[in-house]
Amino acid sequence: MIGIGIIGLGTVGRGTYAILADHNSLIREKTGVDVKVVSIAEIDRQRYQGLDADGIDFVEDAETLIDNDKVDIVVELVGGTDKAYRYITRALQKKKWVVTANKALLAEKGEELFGMAERQGCEIGFEAAVCGGIPVIRAIREGLPGNRIGYLLGILNGTSNYILSKMADEGLAFDAVLMEAQRQGFAEKDPTFDIEGVDAAHKLCILIRLAFRFPITMDEIVTRGISKVELIDLDFAREFGYRIKLLAIAKEEGGLVEARVEPAMISMNHPMANVNGVYNAVYLIGDKVGPNLYYGKGAGSDPTGSAVVSDIVDMAMRRTTGHVRTGFSAHRGDRRMKRGDESISRFYMRFKAHDRPGVLSKISGILADYDISIASVVQKERKEDDYVPIVMLTYEATEENLGLAKEKIDALPFVGGESVYMRIEESRL
Amino acid sequence: MIGIGIIGLGTVGRGTYAILADHNSLIREKTGVDVKVVSIAEIDRQRYQGLDADGIDFVEDAETLIDNDKVDIVVELVGGTDKAYRYITRALQKKKWVVTANKALLAEKGEELFGMAERQGCEIGFEAAVCGGIPVIRAIREGLPGNRIGYLLGILNGTSNYILSKMADEGLAFDAVLMEAQRQGFAEKDPTFDIEGVDAAHKLCILIRLAFRFPITMDEIVTRGISKVELIDLDFAREFGYRIKLLAIAKEEGGLVEARVEPAMISMNHPMANVNGVYNAVYLIGDKVGPNLYYGKGAGSDPTGSAVVSDIVDMAMRRTTGHVRTGFSAHRGDRRMKRGDESISRFYMRFKAHDRPGVLSKISGILADYDISIASVVQKERKEDDYVPIVMLTYEATEENLGLAKEKIDALPFVGGESVYMRIEESRL
Repeated sequence: MIGIGIIGLGTVGRGTYAILADHNSLIREKTGVDVKVVSIAEIDRQRYQGLDADGIDFVEDAETLIDNDKVDIVVELVGGTDKAYRYITRALQKKKWVVTANKALLAEKGEELFGMAERQGCEIGFEAAVCGGIPVIRAIREGLPGNRIGYLLGILNGTSNYILSKMADEGLAFDAVLMEAQRQGFAEKDPTFDIEGVDAAHKLCILIRLAFRFPITMDEIVTRGISKVELIDLDFAREFGYRIKLLAIAKEEGGLVEARVEPAMISMNHPMANVNGVYNAVYLIGDKVGPNLYYGKGAGSDPTGSAVVSDIVDMAMRRTTGHVRTGFSAHRGDRRMKRGDESISRFYMRFKAHDRPGVLSKISGILADYDISIASVVQKERKEDDYVPIVMLTYEATEENLGLAKEKIDALPFVGGESVYMRIEESRL
Repeated sequence: MIGIGIIGLGTVGRGTYAILADHNSLIREKTGVDVKVVSIAEIDRQRYQGLDADGIDFVEDAETLIDNDKVDIVVELVGGTDKAYRYITRALQKKKWVVTANKALLAEKGEELFGMAERQGCEIGFEAAVCGGIPVIRAIREGLPGNRIGYLLGILNGTSNYILSKMADEGLAFDAVLMEAQRQGFAEKDPTFDIEGVDAAHKLCILIRLAFRFPITMDEIVTRGISKVELIDLDFAREFGYRIKLLAIAKEEGGLVEARVEPAMISMNHPMANVNGVYNAVYLIGDKVGPNLYYGKGAGSDPTGSAVVSDIVDMAMRRTTGHVRTGFSAHRGDRRMKRGDESISRFYMRFKAHDRPGVLSKISGILADYDISIASVVQKERKEDDYVPIVMLTYEATEENLGLAKEKIDALPFVGGESVYMRIEESRL
C-alpha cells in the first residue's frame, strides 16, 4: 500500500480525494497498485465535511503531514508559490515523491525544484499543472520520445476561451460575458491571471521546457490578454474565415525560439479553431509523428483530480521497483529567443479613421515605409464615434516594423484612438 | 545499451529504423536510455539499401534474430497473423520483450499473448497497433487510471476517412475516390479490410479491452463498411447539420456493452465531425475527466514508427529496474453485449419511391407499426431512375425494429431497390 498525503482541500484536493475514494478498487484492478489517502492537511475544518475519515490523519499544518512516515507521496494542492515551495522542498528533503498542480510555482522555480528532486532520487509529478484532465504531459514525454518538436499551439486557459467563445457566439461584449462567467463560477473574482494571459504563460513555460527542452523563463514569453478584444474584431475575423483565440504559441527553428500568449486569429479550418467554451487543447508538430492534438477540460475538480491521480498511480507503480523518472533536462545550448525584428507573421490591423479622402493612401503609405504589404482591405460604412473602421490583412511582416508603423499611424490627426492589431497564426496542418 | 531487433523492413520497419538512427542522441538526452538496432530480419535484400549497416546483424530468418543474445526487445513488424504469432511466442519463451504494430493479431489472439507475456515476466508494447502516431494507448492506460470509461468514439481508419472526406468535399463518387486514393498510395491494392471496416474493428477491439476492460471478440463487433455510402446521403447529412464518418462506437451502460463500426452521422458541432482526410481520432468520456480527444495521423512510416519507438523507449527505461507492466486485465464479469432489441438510436433513412399519392402514408404507417416515430421528412423532386428520394430522420428506435420496418418497406411495390439507413450518433459533449 502506498500512502498519500494531500495538502489543501480546495477544488482539486477534493476531486483527488473523491477519485481515490470512489475508484480505489478500479485502480487496483487496472494497475495492480493500492493507493490510499493516509493524511490530509487543511486549516479550514469545514472542508472535512462529507469525507470518509476512516484511517485518515487530519492535520492543520502541512509539515506534520510531510513528516508522517505513512505518507509516501506528498500531493501539494495549496497553490501560491511561497508555502508550496516550502512544502515541496521539505518533502524532497525527506525523500518523498511529490505531485503538484502548481503551474505558477513550476514556471517560476521548476528548474530548481526538478534539480533538487533529481539529487534526492525523487520525482515531481506535474500532469495536473497543464490542461487539467488532458494527459498532455504524458503524451509529450512518454508518447513522443522519438520526436523533435518544433511547433506547439495551446488553448491553455478555460476562462479566456469561454469568454471569447461566448462573445463570438452570442455577440456580447467582454465585460458582460466576464460578469456572467464570474456569476457562474467559470471565472475567479479576481480574473487577472486568466484574462491577461499569465496563467496560460505559466503553462506554456512548462510545455516549452518539456517539448523543446529549452529552459525558458516567464519574462521571455510575450504575454497579452483578451481584455481588449472587441466584438467588431470577432466579426471581422469571421468574415475573413478566422476565429480569435487566446493562443499560446511556441516555435523553434534554426536555433531561434519564439514564445507568445496573445489573442490571435486562426483559420476556421484549423482544428484549434473549433476548441470552444471551457475546453483546452494542445496542438503540436513532431518531426516524425506530424501533427498531434489533445483536447479536454482544462480545469475543475474532477478533471484536474484525474490528472493528479494519474501521477499518483504512475509513481506508486514505480516506487516499489526504484525506477525514477528524470525531470526536465532543459538546456539552452546555442539557442536563443527571437527578437522582434526576427518575428515574422501575417497581421490583422484595424484603424479607426475619419471617412475622408486620402486616409487610406496615407495609412498604406506608412505601412509601405515599413515594408508591410497589404493583402486585403475592408472599409465599412459602419460608424462608431464619427470614425469608420478600416481593416487590413497584411502579408508577412516583422513584429517590430508593425509596432513602429502602428505608432506612426496612431499619431495621424484623422485617426481616432489606438489601432488594433493581431497576429494571424498560419494554419500549419 | 538496450539491443533492438526489427523483424520486417516494410513501411513501419523502415520508419522505426530511421527514427532510432536519426534521433539516437536526442532520445538519450530526453530519457537517459541508449537504444540501438542490433539486428534486422528481412528476406527482401533490396530493402537493406540506404541503411547504415554498422553494428547491425542482417539476417533472413526471424528465428535467428529472436535467438540473438544481443537482442533485448523484439519488434515484430511483419503483419499477418500466423508468422507474427510464431515470432512473438518464441520471443516471449526466450523472455524477450516484444513491440508490435499488429492489430489483427492482437484482436484475434491478444488475450492469449498477453497472458503468456505475463507468465514469462515480459511485456508486449502495442501503441503502434491503434491510431499510428497518436499516443492513445498511453493516454488511456497511463493518463486515465482513475476513470471509468463508458463511451468511446473512434475514427480509426485513415483510408476510409480520406475517401469519405474527399467524397463530401469534392462531390466525387466512392469508386472514383477509391481509385484515386489507390493511385496516390492512400489505399491498398486490395482495400477490403480498410473500406469494409475490418481494420477499424481490429483497433476498436483493442481499445474496448483496454478502456472498458471487457474481453470483446471480433464477432461481437457489428461491422459495416463505407462502400455503399452514396453522395446523396452525404448531401442530405450536410443539409441536416451532420457529417458521415466511419465511426467506431463503443458504449457501456448498466452492464450492457455495445460495439460497432459503421458509417454513421454525427453533428457538425462535434469535434469528431471535423476530423478529415487521413487523420485518425479517438474521443472518449471518463466519469471523472469528462470528454477527451486525441488526434493525429493514423498510419504511415514515420507516425507509426514514432509509436513503435515510444514503446521501445518506455521498455528500455524499465528493463533495467525490473518494473513490468501488466497487459490487458479484461474480464466480462456480469456484463454482456447488447442485443439488437436493446440497441437504441436515432436513424437517418432514405427510400427510393415512385412519386405518387399515398407513398408517404404507407411508409410512415409501417414505421409506426414498429414504434418508430419520425422527427423530420424531406422529399425532393430530384429524380433518379424514375424514383424520388424520401429522407426521414427518426426519433429513438431499436435497431431490431428498424431492420424489420426496412424489410417491409423495401418489399412495397412502389419502392425501388434497397433503402439506406444510418445511425445518428448523438453528440455527447
